[in-house]
Order: sequence, then structure tokens, then C-alpha cells
Amino acid sequence: MDSIAKLINSLTFQRFIIAVILVNAVILGAMATDVTPATMRLLHTLDLICLAIFVIEIALKFAVMRFSMFRDPWNVFDFIIVGIALLPASGPLSVLRALRVLRIMRLVTAIPSMRRVVTGMFAAIPGGASVAAVLFVMYYCAAIIAVKLFRDVSPQHFGDLGTTFFTLFKMMTLEGWPDIADDVIAKSPNAWIFFVTFIILTTFTTLNLLFGIIVDAMNQTREEEEQAELAEANLSEDPLQLAAAKLAVMEDELKAIRKLLEK
Amino acid sequence: MDSIAKLINSLTFQRFIIAVILVNAVILGAMATDVTPATMRLLHTLDLICLAIFVIEIALKFAVMRFSMFRDPWNVFDFIIVGIALLPASGPLSVLRALRVLRIMRLVTAIPSMRRVVTGMFAAIPGGASVAAVLFVMYYCAAIIAVKLFRDVSPQHFGDLGTTFFTLFKMMTLEGWPDIADDVIAKSPNAWIFFVTFIILTTFTTLNLLFGIIVDAMNQTREEEEQAELAEANLSEDPLQLAAAKLAVMEDELKAIRKLLEK
Amino acid sequence: MDSIAKLINSLTFQRFIIAVILVNAVILGAMATDVTPATMRLLHTLDLICLAIFVIEIALKFAVMRFSMFRDPWNVFDFIIVGIALLPASGPLSVLRALRVLRIMRLVTAIPSMRRVVTGMFAAIPGGASVAAVLFVMYYCAAIIAVKLFRDVSPQHFGDLGTTFFTLFKMMTLEGWPDIADDVIAKSPNAWIFFVTFIILTTFTTLNLLFGIIVDAMNQTREEEEQAELAEANLSEDPLQLAAAKLAVMEDELKAIRKLLEK
Amino acid sequence: MDSIAKLINSLTFQRFIIAVILVNAVILGAMATDVTPATMRLLHTLDLICLAIFVIEIALKFAVMRFSMFRDPWNVFDFIIVGIALLPASGPLSVLRALRVLRIMRLVTAIPSMRRVVTGMFAAIPGGASVAAVLFVMYYCAAIIAVKLFRDVSPQHFGDLGTTFFTLFKMMTLEGWPDIADDVIAKSPNAWIFFVTFIILTTFTTLNLLFGIIVDAMNQTREEEEQAELAEANLSEDPLQLAAAKLAVMEDELKAIRKLLEK
Repeated sequence: MDSIAKLINSLTFQRFIIAVILVNAVILGAMATDVTPATMRLLHTLDLICLAIFVIEIALKFAVMRFSMFRDPWNVFDFIIVGIALLPASGPLSVLRALRVLRIMRLVTAIPSMRRVVTGMFAAIPGGASVAAVLFVMYYCAAIIAVKLFRDVSPQHFGDLGTTFFTLFKMMTLEGWPDIADDVIAKSPNAWIFFVTFIILTTFTTLNLLFGIIVDAMNQTREEEEQAELAEANLSEDPLQLAAAKLAVMEDELKAIRKLLEK
Repeated sequence: MDSIAKLINSLTFQRFIIAVILVNAVILGAMATDVTPATMRLLHTLDLICLAIFVIEIALKFAVMRFSMFRDPWNVFDFIIVGIALLPASGPLSVLRALRVLRIMRLVTAIPSMRRVVTGMFAAIPGGASVAAVLFVMYYCAAIIAVKLFRDVSPQHFGDLGTTFFTLFKMMTLEGWPDIADDVIAKSPNAWIFFVTFIILTTFTTLNLLFGIIVDAMNQTREEEEQAELAEANLSEDPLQLAAAKLAVMEDELKAIRKLLEK
Repeated sequence: MDSIAKLINSLTFQRFIIAVILVNAVILGAMATDVTPATMRLLHTLDLICLAIFVIEIALKFAVMRFSMFRDPWNVFDFIIVGIALLPASGPLSVLRALRVLRIMRLVTAIPSMRRVVTGMFAAIPGGASVAAVLFVMYYCAAIIAVKLFRDVSPQHFGDLGTTFFTLFKMMTLEGWPDIADDVIAKSPNAWIFFVTFIILTTFTTLNLLFGIIVDAMNQTREEEEQAELAEANLSEDPLQLAAAKLAVMEDELKAIRKLLEK
Repeated sequence: MDSIAKLINSLTFQRFIIAVILVNAVILGAMATDVTPATMRLLHTLDLICLAIFVIEIALKFAVMRFSMFRDPWNVFDFIIVGIALLPASGPLSVLRALRVLRIMRLVTAIPSMRRVVTGMFAAIPGGASVAAVLFVMYYCAAIIAVKLFRDVSPQHFGDLGTTFFTLFKMMTLEGWPDIADDVIAKSPNAWIFFVTFIILTTFTTLNLLFGIIVDAMNQTREEEEQAELAEANLSEDPLQLAAAKLAVMEDELKAIRKLLEK
């Protein structure tokens, strides 16, 4: 058991896994191009070998850590990604065939600096949860209002609730919103009030959300770095620390002097 | 009276109201889809029940707080939102039927963290007022200049002041501006000077405005958090506070020593 | 002379000028709509009265300050704006008729908080000059390369240097760039290298430029506010200042003690 | 040798080179417009003279610094840029003819403040490397998934891997994504899941990347400025430094007093 644990945690093994992921990424890329059937068979075989290596890696991890391995969300992610690739992927699940490619995302799991980026982003999400909730409530209200007002005016954009959700998502990226607006305004001229209000409010809230999360994510990284620096920094270099230390010495001095004098 | 006040402020009551708002949001969403007349009648009845609960909530609040309840802008917001839903909404006011959906926005009133986000945004607006005023003056000038110069050249975009305001709003989101510009430039080749100047100035000022407000909103939230932290932090942990406290002790020591010596 | 200076600097006079500017803004807006010839004549007369007031204001200022008034760039701006409105504006200068509207921009001159915003933006521009220069060199190189490579492939976008400058400006706002790129790539397939490189480099440099200027402008405003706060803050409230003051007292104490003891 | 080194480093020589680059930029610009064959011949001759001056400059530098000149990446850049202009540029290398224009980029090398901007951007890139890697992995996965799912549905956008890479790059700039999405969704209705996920994830990660690099680049410049300020600032002006100095004096005083008393 111990020797397996050593193997898994060894740098050589981790580098080997990263190499296999990279090779697999190239293979999956090549399989998406037009190749001869013979090459495709070869690529398929190589892909199966890569997949087998991943299965063995997870099996080894499970042998060492048992179910405690699922406490690390990255292991859960790896498990699901490899699990998807093992599903039959025929009939109703055929779309999963495409998701097999997500195996390349294992690169994020395997390389610490990329893992930190993703962890940072996820850690910053709760800070943006309230803004996201406000944005979603605004978006939901706007969708129902738009269906009620423009259902008959512009059925291809606001025909039903699903279409309206997608149309408003497009408008939140600002992409092509003038065409949609002009189409509606041609028939109900006051509709510009809805569109201008929607554009201003959601653009502002979306920017607020994105900035909040990004600034949080950057601050978190910076704070960690600063704390590391502080721990490193020789405390005696800081004039404040120096002053405090000197004051402690002087207080003792003064008390000694007073005692001397009182005698 | 007191028991009503207790009821209103109880966590159970507040959670109940949040639950009713969420249920009402789902009902209003379902009413915007194509449902059978029977289902629609059922949804309509459920919607009326939710509305009744909101009316009772506001009546209870009024019973306890009387007109002082309108000092809190959130209560005013709730009152207006529920009031809109009670209007007949027929004839010229039929557009208010759509605004009934704004009841879902009560979720922002009911959940403190979302309320704080909106309060933060509103509090940051005055800081951006000057930039917004500069932007509006630029926008107003540009609209009059555009009408004067391009009224005959491109009547569908710059035919009258209202249309021009909307066209320039579209251009401020950068959406489809090359089409509008090409249309005008084809007939008056020097128009590119107007468009390039307008795009650069308004994009820059808009970004300035958005950034200013967002950074203000984030700073405000951060400052509040920092002040809370400061209040929490044990003061004696701060080397500066420690030093000041020690100095006060030492000053007293020194004065005592001098007196001793002078004797 | 002194009484004129008093008049010009009085709050009442300044508020009167702001009111005239606002009235003039409404008049100029109304003149851009379709009105009856009679109304137009009335608006024209009112506009002339406003203009006369501005001319008198500048004449008064000149009477008091003489040529030293042109040391303040805002006075130069006012002078030019009012000067444009006095030009005949016929024949080759007819475009200046449209620029008369810029008189509304005098609002920025007249209201201190708006003036500060514009001053802040201008003050931040030098900090962005180097980035702007790099951006311009990149843009100039890209234009010449594009003309050389795509002149024959897509003459409507890259036919000559002027057209190419405008096309690349459009692409820098990202607006409609895929259409332009697809048009070129259809004939010379490797052109995607140029477009992808251009989009990435200029988007990044433009953002860098905008951010730099905006952050500078905000920092400048914040620094001014902080310095004002510092000046206001009672110095003795700051623990550091308190400590320094106490230390000075204690140093004197100690020297006195030593002298006493040495005696 | 020494006199050549003096010449190269003299301000006059550097200004002369900047002037030649600027003249060359104008010449290259003029050559991209429609001129008479006679003018073209003149411009060509002038261009050759500029090029000759650059070759002589590099030769002089090489004479002084030998191969150690290539330790400075800016010299390598200059060498490559001038080298490209000397290549025959016919047949398969004809595209290099267009790259001759990059000589104008030498302006960045020659003017220190522009050089600092570019250095700052390059220095900030490593900080964004992890985010860029995450973005690239997401982009690569999305491309393979899109080819697998939409190859037959929308061959003009997702026909093969190369086309898909370009289509997804367009979508990352948000430009025209609704048209591409509508085209695919018309045939496979669930495709909106892919597009919405892709837009949200890549927009967020791209913004994260751009902000990270820009903020890093600005922080770096600011830190350098702050350190310069700190070095300049008279240390005795800082109350903390003053206090520390006073404390050192007082400690000596106290020790002297104690010794006196102990005697």
C-alpha cells in the first residue's frame, strides 16, 4: 500500500499522467479531423490505451485512499470525467460521446498552477452570489414582461418563455440587440422604454458581477502572496516592530529605575 | 399591537413571505407559457392568494408602524409594487398588467444580502452623477448636431430628435454602428469625423462612469467590512495601539521618577 | 471695475448663466424638431438673446481680467464656443452651423463638479500617452500591411489607406469584424493570421490604455479627497502622531531627570 | 572603437535615428497610396536610403558590442526587423514584402517611454500564463465538442477543426454569435446549452485574463514609481522613522540614568 502511495505522489508519476493527458488531447484533436479509416482505428486504439491508464490511475488512488479520496473535489471531477468516457454512449446518451473530450480538462487537475486559477475563480463565486441573484431576478421579471408585451408583436424573438430567455441572454451580451429592438419598435413604438431600461440595468449589473468576482479572485491571490511575504519578512526590519520591541525594553528599564529610587 | 410587531419581525414570518414570493414567481412564470384554460384559472386563483398574502403583510406592517413605515424606501417600493397589482389594468393602463410581474422583485426586499447589493448600487450613484451629467451633455449635443447634419442624408437613423437619441444610444453600446456610419458616409464622406469622435468620447466616458460607480460600490462594501473587522479586532493586537498604551504607562512612570528625584 | 468683478464672481450671476445655458439647450433642442415657421422665428430670437448674454458675459470678464483671462483654459474654451456661434456660417463654413450646438457644453464650464470630471480626464491623458503612442504605431503598421495584402482582395474594405484606417477602427471596436474577415479569408485563406493577431493585440492595448487613464483619473480624485481628509483630521486623533508627541514629552522628561541625577 | 560607442550612445545620434524612423514611416505610408510611377520610384529610393541607415546603425552597434548586443532583446528585434527588409521577398516569401512595414515598430525600440510600456506588458504576461492555459484548454475542448456535435448541422461554421477554431474565436469576441447559434439551434434545439455555457465561461475567463495582466502591468509601473518616491523621500519626515530615532536616543538616556543610579 505504502509503495503504491509513494508511486502516486512521486513527481515522475504525475509528470507521466500529464504527458498522457497531453498525448490524449492531441489524439482527440486528430480524431476530430478527416482521417483515413486506418488512421482512425489506430487513433481509437491509442485513445483506449490513454483511457486505460486513467482508469488504472484512479483505481490506484482508490486502493490507497478508499472513499476518503472523494473528499477532494478534484478527484470527484476526475472520477466523473473518466466515468463518462466509460459509458456506452449510444442511443439517448449519444451526446455523452462528445463529452468524452472533457478528459482534456484533466490537465487542469494535474497542473497545480492551473488548478489554483480554477480554485480561485470558484472561491470568488460566493462573493458574487448576491449580485448574481439580483441579476437573475431582474432577468426573470424582464422575460415574463417581454413575453406578455411582445408575444404577438415579434413571435420569433418573444414567442414563448424559452425563446424569450434566449433572446434576452443575447441582448445581455449586447449582440444584435438593435435588430431585435427595431423589429419590435416598428409595431409598438413605446417598446424602446423596455429595451433601453433592460440594456442599462443588465449591462450595469453584469459588469458589477463580473468585476466583483474578478477583483475578489485577484485579491484572494494577492492576499495569499502578501501573507507569505509577511511571514518571510524579517520582523525586526519593520520600524513599528522595532519600536515596540524597544519600548518593551525601556519599560523594564524604567521600572528598574523607579525601584532603585524608591529604595 | 406588540404581538403583531413580534409576528412581523419573526424569522418564521419573513421566511414564509420569501416562500410566497418564490411560489408567486413560479406561478407568474407558468402563466406566461401556453397552458390549458383550466390550468390558467387555477394559476390565476393561486396568484390572487399570493397577492392577498402580500396585501395582508402590508396591512399588518401599517397597523404596527403607521405612516412611519414609509420612511423606509423598501416599504415604499413594496407598497407601490403591490399597489400596481391591485389597479384595474384595463384600457389605457393595460401596460400595467405586465408590470404586475415586478412583484417578483420583492425578493430583493425580502432577502437582506440582495437588498444590500441594491442599496450599495444606489449609494454609489451620486458619486457618478457628475460623470453622468457630462456624458448626458455630450450625448444631447451630439444628437442635435447629428439631426442638423444627417437629417436628409439618412432619415431612418437621424430623421428626428427622438430617432436620433435612440440611434446614438445604439451607437453607445457599439452595436451595429459601422452599418449606420457606412450608410451616412456613402452620402457625406466627412461624416467619419463625427462618428469616430462620438465613439471614442462616449465609450471612454461611459466606461469611466461604469467603473466609477462599480469601484465606489465595491469600496463601500469593503470599507464597511473593514470597519466591522477593526471593531472586532482586539485592539491590543495592533503593535501601534500596544506602543501607544505602553507609552502612556511609561510617561506616568517618568513623571513619578522625576517627582521622586525632585524630593 | 471692482463692482463688475464682484458681479461676475457672485453666486447669483453664476446661477443666472447656468440657467441661460439650460434654457439655450432646450431652445437648441426644440430648433432641431419640426416646428412651424412662426415658432422657429421665436426660437431663433430667443437663441439670439441667449447668445447676446454670453457675449456680454465674456465682455465683462475681459473688462475685468484683460488678456489674463485666457490663462484659464476654460475661458479659452468659452471664447471659442461663443466665437463659433458668431461666425457667418454660410458657404464652406456651413458645417459650423451645427457646431453652434456646442454652446451647451458651456454647462461643463459653469458647473464646478462637471468641470472637475473633465479636468480629471484631461489630467489623466498624459499618463496614457505612451500606451496611446504604442497603439497608434501598431494601428499604422497594420493599416499599411492590410493595404498591401488585401487591396485587391477586398477593395471595399481595404481599397486605399483612408478606407483601411476606418475599417481597422471598426475592427478595434470589434463591431462586424467577422464579416470583414470572412470576406477576405474567402479569397486569401491565410488572412486569419492577420485578423486574429490584430484583434488580440489592439483589444489588449486599447483596454490597457482605457484602464490606465480611468484608474489614473480615479486615483487622482481619490488622492485629492484623501489629502483634504488628512488636512481636516485632527492630528492628535492619529495614534502615530499621539505617540510621536508623547515621545517628545518623554525625551524632555528624561533629559531633565539625567540633569537632576548628574547634579 | 570608443569614439563609435560614444557616437551610438549620443543623444544626437539617437534623435537622428528616431527622425529617420519617422520619415520612413511617412514614406511607407505614402507608398501604400496611389501615386504616379515617378513618385513611387522616388519613394522607393528614399526608402532604400532609410534602410541603409538602419543597416549602418546595426553594423556600428555590432562593431562595438559584438555578439553581446544580442543579449538585449530589443537589439534582436531590430536585427530581425531590418533583416526581413533585406530578404529578396519574391516567390513564396512575397508575404514578407508586407512585413517590411514592421520597420515602423522600431519607433518603440527607439523611444524609452514606449519601450517601457511594451516591457511592462511582456513582464505581466507570465502572471497571466496559468489563466491563459485554462482558457486554452477550455477553448480546445469546446472546439472538439463543437466539431463532433455540429459538423453535419452547420458545416460552414463547424465543418472541420480549423474552421471551428476560427468560429469559436469569433464567438469569444461575442461578435455575431447569435447568428451562428441560431443557425445551429434551428436544426438541433438543445445546442443552446453549448452556446450559453461557452459564452459565459470564456467571456468570464477572458476578462479574468485581461484584467489580471493589465492590473499586473499597472501595479508593476506603480511599484517602481513608489520605490523611487520612497528613496527620494527624506526619511526623517516620516513620523514612524522619527519615533524610532527618538526611541533609540531615549534608550541610551535611560541606560545612562540607570548606571548613574546604580553607582
